Amino acid sequence: MNTTRRTFLAAAATSAAAANAGASTAVSNYPRLVHHVFFWLKNPDSKEDLAKLLTGLRTLAKIETVRGVHFGVPASTEKRDVVDNSYSASEILFFDDTAGQKVYQDHPIHKKFVEDCSHLWERVVVYDAISA
Amino acid sequence: MNTTRRTFLAAAATSAAAANAGASTAVSNYPRLVHHVFFWLKNPDSKEDLAKLLTGLRTLAKIETVRGVHFGVPASTEKRDVVDNSYSASEILFFDDTAGQKVYQDHPIHKKFVEDCSHLWERVVVYDAISA
Repeated sequence: MNTTRRTFLAAAATSAAAANAGASTAVSNYPRLVHHVFFWLKNPDSKEDLAKLLTGLRTLAKIETVRGVHFGVPASTEKRDVVDNSYSASEILFFDDTAGQKVYQDHPIHKKFVEDCSHLWERVVVYDAISA
Repeated sequence: MNTTRRTFLAAAATSAAAANAGASTAVSNYPRLVHHVFFWLKNPDSKEDLAKLLTGLRTLAKIETVRGVHFGVPASTEKRDVVDNSYSASEILFFDDTAGQKVYQDHPIHKKFVEDCSHLWERVVVYDAISA
């Protein structure tokens, strides 16, 4: 079991403990804050650039306030008008709250990722969502 | 513990078992397929419409191939050029694979949600991502 998975499962266990103690009132699954980022590469056909970006993204899982991660590429689901599959890579990071997201935003590991990888992309869109 | 949370934790436990058995090679956390949908309401200032949409979204958690859920609204993270906080509600559903997502797409509960709630939104954007 790698460190990332362990972190994620630890978070799930914490959530279970909270739920069992009746301490949780969240209607959706733990963790509460989702930071979802989509990247469009400058060279969308470059497997090498995609690999570099994904390698960079994986370093973000080490940041201590990150509670769960998912790094992906467009899935081969049904093509429909509402589906945007034009992006190159997708990053989801879960945090307990906005404070945790702020720690990540300012973290040296995150800054190094931007420094090392930002030349690869031409567009980034971020959606931050909190459980409702 | 509600049904949704139980489902999610059961999925996490399955993942842990797979990892312990050395059966998992995924680099990111389980589950592999993320279906992320953003909704822009016709009446973005209507708390009632938002509540109706969120109530509808929560019914989707009952679909048997859904492995985890997060329903949210824009978080109060730092305002930056790359952050899109113009949407009204966010839906994340996790599936094991594209087959699981297809079961959801065609499921009566999903169809009923669209029937009951689609008059509320003016725009929907879907991103489907598979672990990479």
